[in-house]
Amino acid sequence: MSEKWQQLLSRLGEIHDLEGSCAVLGWDQQTYMPPGGNQVKASQLATLLKLAHNMFVSDEMGELLEDLEAEMKDMPYDSFEAGILRVTRRAYDQAKCLSEDLVTELAKARTLAFAAWAKAKQESDFSIFRPQLEHTLELKRQQAEALTYTDTPYDALLRLYEPDLNTAQVALLFTQLRERQVPLITAIAASGKKVDTSPIRQHFPDAGQWKLQLRLLELMGFNMEHGRLDRAEHPFTTSFGIQDVRLTTHLYPTDLCSGLFSTIHEAGHGLYEQGIDPKYERTPLANGATLSVHESQSRLWENLIGRSRLFWQHLMPILREIFPQQMAGVNIDRMYQAVNEVKPSFIRVDADEATYNLHIFIRFELEQDLITGKLAVADLPEAWNDKYESYLGIRPSNDAEGVLQDVHWSTGMFGYFPTYALGNILSVQIWDTMKQEPDISAALLKGDFKVVRYWLRKNIHAYGRMFTTQEIAQRVTGRPLTVGPYLDYIETKYKELYGL
Amino acid sequence: MSEKWQQLLSRLGEIHDLEGSCAVLGWDQQTYMPPGGNQVKASQLATLLKLAHNMFVSDEMGELLEDLEAEMKDMPYDSFEAGILRVTRRAYDQAKCLSEDLVTELAKARTLAFAAWAKAKQESDFSIFRPQLEHTLELKRQQAEALTYTDTPYDALLRLYEPDLNTAQVALLFTQLRERQVPLITAIAASGKKVDTSPIRQHFPDAGQWKLQLRLLELMGFNMEHGRLDRAEHPFTTSFGIQDVRLTTHLYPTDLCSGLFSTIHEAGHGLYEQGIDPKYERTPLANGATLSVHESQSRLWENLIGRSRLFWQHLMPILREIFPQQMAGVNIDRMYQAVNEVKPSFIRVDADEATYNLHIFIRFELEQDLITGKLAVADLPEAWNDKYESYLGIRPSNDAEGVLQDVHWSTGMFGYFPTYALGNILSVQIWDTMKQEPDISAALLKGDFKVVRYWLRKNIHAYGRMFTTQEIAQRVTGRPLTVGPYLDYIETKYKELYGL
Repeated sequence: MSEKWQQLLSRLGEIHDLEGSCAVLGWDQQTYMPPGGNQVKASQLATLLKLAHNMFVSDEMGELLEDLEAEMKDMPYDSFEAGILRVTRRAYDQAKCLSEDLVTELAKARTLAFAAWAKAKQESDFSIFRPQLEHTLELKRQQAEALTYTDTPYDALLRLYEPDLNTAQVALLFTQLRERQVPLITAIAASGKKVDTSPIRQHFPDAGQWKLQLRLLELMGFNMEHGRLDRAEHPFTTSFGIQDVRLTTHLYPTDLCSGLFSTIHEAGHGLYEQGIDPKYERTPLANGATLSVHESQSRLWENLIGRSRLFWQHLMPILREIFPQQMAGVNIDRMYQAVNEVKPSFIRVDADEATYNLHIFIRFELEQDLITGKLAVADLPEAWNDKYESYLGIRPSNDAEGVLQDVHWSTGMFGYFPTYALGNILSVQIWDTMKQEPDISAALLKGDFKVVRYWLRKNIHAYGRMFTTQEIAQRVTGRPLTVGPYLDYIETKYKELYGL
Repeated sequence: MSEKWQQLLSRLGEIHDLEGSCAVLGWDQQTYMPPGGNQVKASQLATLLKLAHNMFVSDEMGELLEDLEAEMKDMPYDSFEAGILRVTRRAYDQAKCLSEDLVTELAKARTLAFAAWAKAKQESDFSIFRPQLEHTLELKRQQAEALTYTDTPYDALLRLYEPDLNTAQVALLFTQLRERQVPLITAIAASGKKVDTSPIRQHFPDAGQWKLQLRLLELMGFNMEHGRLDRAEHPFTTSFGIQDVRLTTHLYPTDLCSGLFSTIHEAGHGLYEQGIDPKYERTPLANGATLSVHESQSRLWENLIGRSRLFWQHLMPILREIFPQQMAGVNIDRMYQAVNEVKPSFIRVDADEATYNLHIFIRFELEQDLITGKLAVADLPEAWNDKYESYLGIRPSNDAEGVLQDVHWSTGMFGYFPTYALGNILSVQIWDTMKQEPDISAALLKGDFKVVRYWLRKNIHAYGRMFTTQEIAQRVTGRPLTVGPYLDYIETKYKELYGL
């Protein structure tokens, strides 16, 4: 190991420590922080992020990178060294594009816009958020210009989350999805079939639900030596490091499934972070590859496993043990139908598997128009409601259940939403590939879901941030992101469920 | 405000943010961290501490300090500016004495010695800890030399915690304490009186105990908007910032008082941190003055209030409400006696009010001899046991209940123990002064304990780190640290309780 290489790793390690510390602070903010602790937290986060940024964009870092890229140019693409250099170079070039002024302005706008959004949502009044959103958009346009792009400024923002995807590629995939997914939902609605959801809408006491969440984590093989589950208003997963991954969930007393699917979803993310090769710790490879790949993991567990008949067959005895009264007289058929009800709804995070992507199409279209200026912020609520009416046949009656529901835009995350739908697509590609292994299918039949974790770890998790979304799709499934498997899956599943 | 002053505040603010972030990490480590999260945590803490240290000892900081000291030399002693400069100068000169090598060595030794101590304690085998303690002592001697001293190296280490106290002064105070405290304990033992502790040694379910702790915090006026209570193996208090102060406690199912007094003690510390003038936030003044003053606050609440008859009179209705069965037939006299039982014991943290200081005398004497080399580490367990036999008339039967019980020495904290006894002394001086105000006594009789918080905030808390221990004793009580009030208090209280 050259001395320069050691220097690079040491610098990257310290930056990683700062970022991991931010993860701890952010976790505390959403789990245990007292109401009045926000100002202290904001100040600490700002300082840690500033230090990390300054350490990263230093000239010494640039020189080290350049020298080492030359020195190690013959290292194999999937080697530790090449991976570190590639990921670091990408982030370095992006960070270097942004002036310290713009970074500071974006951070300030985030704090202000988030506060405005929270207030606006609470009062269901978009006008409170509007000036801040306009300012945020102006800064995001500046950021896109600074990052440079060929076709549309949205490309530059999308690239922050998906280094090897552009707007045109995503738009094409979404068009292909729409062509079959929209008619499917129309057919379901036309079927007139009503699903009985009463089995999952009983009173489920909190203590029992908590026990259930821990059993779910056990089933999935989430390692509680190196992680934990806590409660948060909006469930999320965060990694302090490969050896300390934190999940959160939110339980509702009269809804069995909201907490259950949140936990499974977050544990899907958590298994990814826990599964990264330990030798990547304290390097830029020590996180999931991209948002889409991350979402493919959470969605695979939540939908392909969590909403499958097989899974509920193995879950029923556990439910009967924890909730004997509530489960009396409820059989697997009723349960399977109840957890797979398709029903157009206003709130993305509560959407069922079949309609979920439609919520994403709406946001993807709107945020492109916002960034290019085609849509004025003042017209956004109306445009939002029109799209809901056109895609889902329902019209939000107020801003809280409409345009204000998601936090993303307030924190400047434009280009983030499409990764949710891309994750759905990829999850089925991966699932289909995995199921071709006879051992996996056999183990699943026996209720051994840990084989899934094992397979995902070996084929995806272990590599951390080594590869991009398309590289992972290609390496793992033999082809790039493709909508076919996903569409086949939902058509088969829901045609059977709705007798179409 | 001069530009240099703004620069100093900005630098100190960032260092304070780093230290506050360390507090968050440390809190998580002792409350919620999964067993396998230690390595991640250690690495993050090391990086944050290193960055804070380097930012602090920079030449720019030294120049700023020097220039501003000249510029502001006429500011009043108790002004914000003079306070900042004084406290910063003290810490800066101390930090500058230490080479980066020694700082790194001390940090490394701390990690290793702590691990060795934990293992040794678990196996009750001092020999596991011995080599690490020897190494730590060697480094502490080097640190003392680097910090410089006049009489004894112990002075240099004590000064890290108590800037205006030296070994001879502390030894004199302890001699004065011994002269009356040891005969008191001997007389209590000779009285042969047995206290009935059965009222506090029943089964007290956890949910009820938790409710009780929250009621205690309410009684004391601890602000839950800007703080919280969690559980930890060893209760502690930490401040993320003036607006976010975290308490911890530990509840035992068959012991009413262990958790109760832990909570009151920690809330005493917490009220101090919450009570600091908000304008000191993000400066070196935004913490309690010294360890002794901090302990005077926790001890005042724990002992002078928490173990008083008056307090229990007001607590009884709450206890009857939460634990009606357990409290049936228990009156205030039995309770008051039970919570004030005097009984020589091996473990410092479980010691009663009357014998507590004796545990400190033992440690103070031993750690001086260790630092000067008069006592070899190999002979420490024997010396420890001899002192317990001589001071308390009992001899530990193993290392775990003897020399290995406390964590302090493993983390290099020599000179820390005496501050516990100094806090006891100061607590009564403050208490006597406060009680001279007629309003306070009247409010206390009515069970309004928040007046105590109000008085302490106004006279002590608000000033944060502005003054030293002796300065606070002098300003608040009109004289320096003095053992008289403390000895009068315990003699009066325990002679009455034991009919002497």
